[in-house]
Amino acid sequence: MTDLQPFFTPRGVAVIGASRDPRKLSYAVLRDLVEHGYPGPVYPVNPTATAIRGLRCYPTVQEVPDPVDLAVIIIPAPAVPEALEGCGRRGIRAAIVISGGFGELGPEGEALERRIVEIARRHQIRLIGPNCIGVIDTITPLDTTFVGTMPVRGTIAFVSHSGAICGGVIDVAYRQGIGFSRFVSLGNQADVNETEVLAFLAEDPHSRVVAAYLEGVADGGRFLEVARRLTARKPFVVLKAGRTGGGVRAAASHTGALAGSDRAFEAAFRKAGVLRADTLEELLDYATALAYQPPPRGERVAVVTNAGGPGILAVDALERAGLRLASLAPETSERLAARLPRGANVHNPVDLLGGAYADDYAFALDTVLEDPGVDAALVILVPQALVSPVDVANAIGNAADRSEKPIVAAFVGDASTEAGVQAMHRRRVPVYPFPERAARALAALRLDARRRQPRREERLPEADTARAAAVIRQAQAAGQRHLLGPEARAVVEAYGLRVPASGLARTAAEAVALARRIGYPVALKVHAPEISHKSDVGGVVLGVHDEAGVRAAFAEIVDRARRYVPGTEVLGVMVQAMVPAGREVIVGASRDRQFGPLVAFGLGGLFVEALGDVSFRLAPVSREEAREMIRETRAARVLAGIRGEPPADVEAIVEAIRRIGRLVLDFPAIVELDLNPLIVGAEGEGAWAVDVRIVLEGNASPSRRSKVPGDGNGLPGSSLQHALDRG
Amino acid sequence: MTDLQPFFTPRGVAVIGASRDPRKLSYAVLRDLVEHGYPGPVYPVNPTATAIRGLRCYPTVQEVPDPVDLAVIIIPAPAVPEALEGCGRRGIRAAIVISGGFGELGPEGEALERRIVEIARRHQIRLIGPNCIGVIDTITPLDTTFVGTMPVRGTIAFVSHSGAICGGVIDVAYRQGIGFSRFVSLGNQADVNETEVLAFLAEDPHSRVVAAYLEGVADGGRFLEVARRLTARKPFVVLKAGRTGGGVRAAASHTGALAGSDRAFEAAFRKAGVLRADTLEELLDYATALAYQPPPRGERVAVVTNAGGPGILAVDALERAGLRLASLAPETSERLAARLPRGANVHNPVDLLGGAYADDYAFALDTVLEDPGVDAALVILVPQALVSPVDVANAIGNAADRSEKPIVAAFVGDASTEAGVQAMHRRRVPVYPFPERAARALAALRLDARRRQPRREERLPEADTARAAAVIRQAQAAGQRHLLGPEARAVVEAYGLRVPASGLARTAAEAVALARRIGYPVALKVHAPEISHKSDVGGVVLGVHDEAGVRAAFAEIVDRARRYVPGTEVLGVMVQAMVPAGREVIVGASRDRQFGPLVAFGLGGLFVEALGDVSFRLAPVSREEAREMIRETRAARVLAGIRGEPPADVEAIVEAIRRIGRLVLDFPAIVELDLNPLIVGAEGEGAWAVDVRIVLEGNASPSRRSKVPGDGNGLPGSSLQHALDRG
Repeated sequence: MTDLQPFFTPRGVAVIGASRDPRKLSYAVLRDLVEHGYPGPVYPVNPTATAIRGLRCYPTVQEVPDPVDLAVIIIPAPAVPEALEGCGRRGIRAAIVISGGFGELGPEGEALERRIVEIARRHQIRLIGPNCIGVIDTITPLDTTFVGTMPVRGTIAFVSHSGAICGGVIDVAYRQGIGFSRFVSLGNQADVNETEVLAFLAEDPHSRVVAAYLEGVADGGRFLEVARRLTARKPFVVLKAGRTGGGVRAAASHTGALAGSDRAFEAAFRKAGVLRADTLEELLDYATALAYQPPPRGERVAVVTNAGGPGILAVDALERAGLRLASLAPETSERLAARLPRGANVHNPVDLLGGAYADDYAFALDTVLEDPGVDAALVILVPQALVSPVDVANAIGNAADRSEKPIVAAFVGDASTEAGVQAMHRRRVPVYPFPERAARALAALRLDARRRQPRREERLPEADTARAAAVIRQAQAAGQRHLLGPEARAVVEAYGLRVPASGLARTAAEAVALARRIGYPVALKVHAPEISHKSDVGGVVLGVHDEAGVRAAFAEIVDRARRYVPGTEVLGVMVQAMVPAGREVIVGASRDRQFGPLVAFGLGGLFVEALGDVSFRLAPVSREEAREMIRETRAARVLAGIRGEPPADVEAIVEAIRRIGRLVLDFPAIVELDLNPLIVGAEGEGAWAVDVRIVLEGNASPSRRSKVPGDGNGLPGSSLQHALDRG
Repeated sequence: MTDLQPFFTPRGVAVIGASRDPRKLSYAVLRDLVEHGYPGPVYPVNPTATAIRGLRCYPTVQEVPDPVDLAVIIIPAPAVPEALEGCGRRGIRAAIVISGGFGELGPEGEALERRIVEIARRHQIRLIGPNCIGVIDTITPLDTTFVGTMPVRGTIAFVSHSGAICGGVIDVAYRQGIGFSRFVSLGNQADVNETEVLAFLAEDPHSRVVAAYLEGVADGGRFLEVARRLTARKPFVVLKAGRTGGGVRAAASHTGALAGSDRAFEAAFRKAGVLRADTLEELLDYATALAYQPPPRGERVAVVTNAGGPGILAVDALERAGLRLASLAPETSERLAARLPRGANVHNPVDLLGGAYADDYAFALDTVLEDPGVDAALVILVPQALVSPVDVANAIGNAADRSEKPIVAAFVGDASTEAGVQAMHRRRVPVYPFPERAARALAALRLDARRRQPRREERLPEADTARAAAVIRQAQAAGQRHLLGPEARAVVEAYGLRVPASGLARTAAEAVALARRIGYPVALKVHAPEISHKSDVGGVVLGVHDEAGVRAAFAEIVDRARRYVPGTEVLGVMVQAMVPAGREVIVGASRDRQFGPLVAFGLGGLFVEALGDVSFRLAPVSREEAREMIRETRAARVLAGIRGEPPADVEAIVEAIRRIGRLVLDFPAIVELDLNPLIVGAEGEGAWAVDVRIVLEGNASPSRRSKVPGDGNGLPGSSLQHALDRG
């Protein structure tokens, strides 16, 4: 029992501002509360009326008798503070403020909102809203909104940053018979936010799936924690608004949501096992499937249909969604052939032909679901004059009850399938008007189960944190914003990455001596605090084979650096061992305002810059997650070896990703990091962090920053950071 | 007036096989014909009845009186030939065979199908079906099907290879009030096929848009021609089933459709200005928008909504679909602010707030559509207790009538928006239950208009066809399946591509002499009829700078070739001028069974092999199409110059694509062609076809082919061909 419980199961409800005028929303709130079956006492609070709808009115909330533990407030904003004070004095500890006129209206409203929060805190009142439509609970039942339609009772909980989305979803779902357990419209979230409600729903036995429309989250870390707890118990499907630049701006002007980067949200959803919907239609489609059916154990789907065309559309959609047609066992086809009419297709997709009756559907579904090569069934009904959709729905429901494998359905129609659709929802088989939507819902069932799979706990990789800390502290003390090459390499080396032998030369003679010690061939790279993208200024010469080459390269590099960045202080030239040839990849990290350190992976060269083909995870990153990161990019195919090249050492990349994950977790001062490139040898050969770029929290002066190429002049600062920005 | 006219506007209809039993489809056909308002005489043909539903019956079609020019046949398949003979003798020239039991059942049925085609030809009868549901025409009106629901009259023509898809679409569309002009279910297409019906609909003044569900086309060339004619007059939106491997197999087993490669279909649709839908829902969504509204002139959309959340979803969806939010002029926002309530958002998305009435919608839509910075409006209604959706629909309809800019709408609801949705369809404003679908429909309006834009006629590029013909003829005469390097280069040179100077050396000494004449550095490449992928066998050495290098490379190449392909005949070594450094791209061509020569473009290196990032067009390819091909791939970004590199000579690629397009058009004997790589210099520097691979129609023996690496041993034959195959 949390302190949110009274919002759902109050012992009595006061409606502060209940109106006698049926054209007012404050009348509708009272009407819906009463008509939608709330079993406890309802107390209209209205100083000018004695009774509304036969209920006795009270002039103020203080006169309201026991029991009462929820107030629904729908009065002009300026009067809300006083009403809330009254609730406090009356001992009410839960209030839903439906009224608008607060934070959403600018500074004045914000002040008012702060005031009601202060009052609520003082009286220990939990507050939903303001500027919301409140709560609907089909279990109690309780409806504090003015929507007018009471949803069918069911097992989907719906949480929303938009009251209108709640209203729209209720309307769309009602006629079909899609059932819900609770609706919570959060409004301005002056007090109760989405994460608290999610925590409540995680424990709610009446909600089998949680669906949410979110414009942001109040606190990234807390959301992540609660979402993980939630998905450990039930599916959680989210439609996050503000995916695009325009959407983010629109969301900010709507509820002032700090949308944060969509890529960070994506990474957070992955981490927490959250399923993502791309559209409102998908949100509802997926929630329905998740509420009704178990996940398929594999990708092999049997399609059972009474018409060829829609069957083909289902197959196309299944394959595009990552599932595939099952190959039916010969005995399965034989059993089908023994009963189905001539012309029926007894292979997958199984076509029962237009004359199929309910018992044909039951027979065919039972038969294919018994086939061990089938993980799920997608069943299609195109309405036929002589076939009852309700009978077919019940036959499908029976088959679903008899099998542990999931069934999804498409009833391709509207008016003539309506009763059948309602029967399907009663029987808890998800049904859609088009085969493609059924296919995608089935894929969502599969994806959700995979995302929610318990992840193996993993110890963080070993690291010499003290050594890294010393380097970073020293740089910070010197006021550096960028770690120099040797410093950055030392930091990642302390975290177990392999870096090539190197040394700093101040003169050409020193460079020659170093090269001799390291062994030819060597690379020479400019070393200057203000140059972070060395190759952009011609500051890198690779594959130098002899002394003459070293001297020439040294002179060239110093000259170029001075020419490109006039007045720069060239501290010298790094002489570095050349590493064996290999695939170039990039591993990077950045820091999201909401979710903290974000690790990125992409294939080097044009792949990141031209394609933005980068994958992300929140730190820490497990081996399994790191492997997924690689698989999600096109890099996987290149690393596996193209045209006879040997496969690259993918496990070395996995290790690098994990270690960078721990590094940025250990040092919040690191705001950007790039291994670019990380050179990966063939399997077993490991990887080399050849060039490491680490940016610390900003403490350098702007004038100094503006001289750094690639940081202040419009050139891409780092390809990965660039990709991150684009996200 | 074509010979298909009697299928839609017959002067009288005979129903052969009409039944008295209301449980039979052959009763339903008669019922729908009469009840759905067919104005002409209806003649049931049934030897055992005297009257059905009060209509006099005729024992055979020959007794049927005038006027009659359409027969609907719904009797067991074996009886169809005789009935068709009767129609022929009676002078009926149009027959719809609803009965199944023909080609779809295997060899026996195929024979029966051939027989009815023979009878139809002999009597000059045009035949729709068999195994179809026939024709619905809301204009005449005429309904020959047994669906039971007469669609609302409208302007969408629907053509389908699946009768069930027709039935499903009618059912889905009916309650909303989406209107159609004609439905044609084609069945087995024994005679009339989709292309003929499309040609009819191109001329049909009652159809403003044509929507089709297709599983393939009867004749690629003819389809292309008819589709171009159609899209010159009206939008044509297609859902093509069989996009994936599984879908293709399912389609083949359904109607035996030769699906052909989906990439070739995509290219054909592009060429013909056809809009493609990915799902049945999209097909209907797009057709509705195209039937009602003009295309937007640009990408700038104003969103007008009564709720913030759905507005943000619309913005996200608009941006993801390639449109964007308009920036409203300051005066527009001021005009909105002057009237809308406090708290309303007067910037885009315009949020009228929940209390908005119909006149607020009308005012806001008029205001934003008058803004010259707005190309279209997307309007959202979330149902509110006190607002009439019908009034809002009429207000939107009025605004649409007053503006030349398109409006699309989302009414987020079902039962409570139903009357409003019907009013919207009457007012010809497309409406969807979710904002994202409205956004995508608007994007489809824009895309359709761009695809159907008249393309500038363009002369084919100049070419020395005689020279190319001579080379090809000679190779064919020699029984070659692959042109040798010099031959292939000569062919593309004859078509205006630039190839590096080269010569064939049979000895090292000849190679040295050639290199001297061409000028160092040179490349040496193996020259053997059986080696088409030279670098795979180590047959290429680049950047040879001196005589010693030429001798060493010559020896090495000959040795390797003999080692890798034992017994191969090495004719010598090509010595070739090295071309300046540049970007590597690939231009290729292949031949599709349905649509003929297909030209492909991709960026060289890993882009084609690892990413399959290739674009396609049917030959001939115009400059505009070639530019689109480049823009469609990620190559565009690389060619524009990354990290300060100069932009590549894109126009040189455009020329190469056009010229290869003409080449494969001129020589059907060329079945595969690759320029891999085509090396592209900086702007103005042109491009070099360094390596050219041309495969002729198979006339080499299999044993010989199997020796060719990359062709018979599972290695990728050509990266582009590989990408084509994956399509």
